[in-house]
Amino acid sequence: MILTVTLNTALDITYRVRELCPYASHRVTSVTERPGGKGLNVARVLAALGHEVTVTGFTGGPAGRAVQDQLTATPGVLDALVPVSGSTRRTIAVVEETATSLTPDTTQLNEPGPQITPAEWSAFQGVYEGLLPSVSVVALCGSLPPGVPVGAYAHLIRTARAAGVPVLLDTSGEPLRRGVAARPDVVKPNAAELTELTGSHEPSQATRDVRRRGARAVVASLGPDGLLAVTPEGRWRAIPPTRVRGNPTGAGDSAAAGLLSGFVDQLPWPERLARATALSAATVSTPVAGEFDRPTYEKLLSRVRVTTEATAA
Amino acid sequence: MILTVTLNTALDITYRVRELCPYASHRVTSVTERPGGKGLNVARVLAALGHEVTVTGFTGGPAGRAVQDQLTATPGVLDALVPVSGSTRRTIAVVEETATSLTPDTTQLNEPGPQITPAEWSAFQGVYEGLLPSVSVVALCGSLPPGVPVGAYAHLIRTARAAGVPVLLDTSGEPLRRGVAARPDVVKPNAAELTELTGSHEPSQATRDVRRRGARAVVASLGPDGLLAVTPEGRWRAIPPTRVRGNPTGAGDSAAAGLLSGFVDQLPWPERLARATALSAATVSTPVAGEFDRPTYEKLLSRVRVTTEATAA
Repeated sequence: MILTVTLNTALDITYRVRELCPYASHRVTSVTERPGGKGLNVARVLAALGHEVTVTGFTGGPAGRAVQDQLTATPGVLDALVPVSGSTRRTIAVVEETATSLTPDTTQLNEPGPQITPAEWSAFQGVYEGLLPSVSVVALCGSLPPGVPVGAYAHLIRTARAAGVPVLLDTSGEPLRRGVAARPDVVKPNAAELTELTGSHEPSQATRDVRRRGARAVVASLGPDGLLAVTPEGRWRAIPPTRVRGNPTGAGDSAAAGLLSGFVDQLPWPERLARATALSAATVSTPVAGEFDRPTYEKLLSRVRVTTEATAA
Repeated sequence: MILTVTLNTALDITYRVRELCPYASHRVTSVTERPGGKGLNVARVLAALGHEVTVTGFTGGPAGRAVQDQLTATPGVLDALVPVSGSTRRTIAVVEETATSLTPDTTQLNEPGPQITPAEWSAFQGVYEGLLPSVSVVALCGSLPPGVPVGAYAHLIRTARAAGVPVLLDTSGEPLRRGVAARPDVVKPNAAELTELTGSHEPSQATRDVRRRGARAVVASLGPDGLLAVTPEGRWRAIPPTRVRGNPTGAGDSAAAGLLSGFVDQLPWPERLARATALSAATVSTPVAGEFDRPTYEKLLSRVRVTTEATAA
């Protein structure tokens, strides 16, 4: 069993409109809703790969119920979300029907998320500790909702380590900085998160710095430049065979799912990285985070190029 | 007991953002949610005036549950909404924090509403017929959701007339045209609806035309020009003593509530019109449809000027 933690779950809503004009009234022509938040995207990809996944984090209000209704209908996903009095945030993507692949088309409106009380944060920690004995790996994903202490991930990493459960951390900013210091097994920053954390724009140097700060392994997702992994077992670069065009939303979440999947299948690092890279590229070719195009994934998997990176002096 | 019908109920959501920029990502700084749809606004105003009101129409999905949760918490309002498999529509008003009263500030995104099946429309008619014997007046308000026949209001008017219950109709377009032909007791168009229905931009002529088409009385809400009433008992103009600045959303719904309230209190037409005009103006001075500023209402009530209009040749 894999456990993914999404403290700031979301209901991701997509509105199609003809054209977005500020200060005008718009008729929305189509509405789609999906569970959102990085850990839920990771869980849906893992479930589609055939893994059993438990999801935890917070849920509240009508948006939380909508998220849970859809999760319950997803085979392989077990709902262990903790109810809170506030409401799960909604994110609204307003997409123009006239958009082409050459024009920007999406305007995003993101609610802040529910205010978590100290009692709710404490209840979550009890649920989390109760789940750890039955899981083989845990992924801590995404931003923190208001009220959760900034050191939350550091605390959850130490709890998992004490229970002997490996941890993957995928977040940003101060929660990432503090989390890295708590010695997670893997962190998966993107280029911007890597630079924010280390001050360096040079991925090779920045990934080494993140290991020095406490992470056992670092897998940086560098968009079209693929993945750069720096681990105790070696350093690798994994690059998709062709550049895939499309929507990069969720590509990093699919990469995290590939790493987790490869870990529980006990693959060596190069094969884990190939799986993560192919899943990530197969997600770019779909319009929705948390989903991937299976034929693209299967076609790319054997063609991802994984090369050993020279160790810097 | 007053009955209001809102076939296309809504959850009205207001987002505050710093500034709305197409194709950018926005952090929403505050979220408010209220029951919406014209008949629910009318009901909330009636309840605040001390009347007992039953609301019916359709409700579905998480947005429907949120609407019902708030209605249940409103003293004086009884929920007789009919559940449907689709989801109650959301409307999103994106308001800029930097807006002043001199600049436009609101961008509106309106979902289309649930698809109503023939079985659901039939179930609603059963509920409606069951409610009629216990009500003194019924208000039919707002647009029709997809799937409801365009002659729906005409049918509901004939059913109410057969049960001896007076009807107020407040809608637009073809549902208004067909509804008027079914001989409602009062229709309450605004200036744009009046013109769309009759082709005339001249309210005095247009209101006479609406009576010829079947309405027993017509009360046109003309914004700052107040109300123009054409009834079998006479013709009146009601004008607020001062021009109230603010948000006109919901002003027409409050006017309808004032007419219904005056009717059940058996007031003569001039006093009904004064109540409707004062409520309407007291709604413009609040930011939210379905609410009014009570001190403003009480201050204006005795100062509304109601004058007899000359009958045209």
